[in-house]
Amino acid sequence: MAAEDNKDLIEILENQNSIDVAKYMNFVSAPQAGAIATFSGTTRDTFDGKTVLELIYEAYIPMAIRCIKSVCTSARESWNLHSIAVAHQLGTVPVGETSVFIAVSSVHRADALEACRYLIDEIKATVPIWKKEVYSNGEVWKENAEFLERRSELGKRDVAVEIKEHKKKLCCGTKVRVNHEGGQD
Amino acid sequence: MAAEDNKDLIEILENQNSIDVAKYMNFVSAPQAGAIATFSGTTRDTFDGKTVLELIYEAYIPMAIRCIKSVCTSARESWNLHSIAVAHQLGTVPVGETSVFIAVSSVHRADALEACRYLIDEIKATVPIWKKEVYSNGEVWKENAEFLERRSELGKRDVAVEIKEHKKKLCCGTKVRVNHEGGQD
Repeated sequence: MAAEDNKDLIEILENQNSIDVAKYMNFVSAPQAGAIATFSGTTRDTFDGKTVLELIYEAYIPMAIRCIKSVCTSARESWNLHSIAVAHQLGTVPVGETSVFIAVSSVHRADALEACRYLIDEIKATVPIWKKEVYSNGEVWKENAEFLERRSELGKRDVAVEIKEHKKKLCCGTKVRVNHEGGQD
Repeated sequence: MAAEDNKDLIEILENQNSIDVAKYMNFVSAPQAGAIATFSGTTRDTFDGKTVLELIYEAYIPMAIRCIKSVCTSARESWNLHSIAVAHQLGTVPVGETSVFIAVSSVHRADALEACRYLIDEIKATVPIWKKEVYSNGEVWKENAEFLERRSELGKRDVAVEIKEHKKKLCCGTKVRVNHEGGQD
């Protein structure tokens, strides 16, 4: 499923194909943009000393897209950007493969570089995408540590009010887990 | 001409082929690295309100490689990095094409993202690569504004002493212009 607003492209990929990095870099490149910054998050072979075989991602796609759009809007408010592309893989992502890819273009490099950092930090912290880590000796579903941290910050005050006041902090009020087989489109 | 030290790849390209972004991203990717940050510098169509047709880059290649190596070493001292790849195109780079590409991988994303920013800033400020801007109504050779700025900072003290003391600041004592046809390898 994809969403393209203004000059931003957001894609949540459900197939098992690798993320096509060149496609997103081409999407953001333009004659007026002198800089492209990218970030790729890939499955690494160890976590906390345990051997990782693969990661499995799940999300309720419309909400994930809405949250990523919100992060993109917020980035555009802070930096002078030409285009943004964000792709996130769902399903199984083996070691060495890319689960999330971000590309940002701008006239001057500081904007693209700073926005790219902001985008990945905010996406990790605010977009409800679940991750199962499959180890050589077991597996565990886990929320992203940064997501939990951000929710914990919000929990210090009335969450509903906080979310309303500071939409940037977490675009989704409730992180709802859905079955992989149903409820998505 | 290329230089490969440890896990770093530095290439100065003299042909007219585009920089092969996938090659450098593959070079830095590894099962133990969870993050890859990249930066592409591309020729943009305007500069200071003037229409740019193309940029032409020249360098004394062995010195450019030595300077880039020095920046990579310095980045490794500050961040925990897996691999670095730096490619710089010489000769004509038309609008929209990439003149410099940097890819950095690390276990955790903060290292790759921060090092990528440092690498492009330092390469722009310290590596002697000359740029001719070809406009629709003329052309001009120019040193990079950041390079001049860094030299100007050095000029406030005895330059030779300063360079010896702070090699990171500018790896080359003298920026020697050579003919494109001769003196390179």
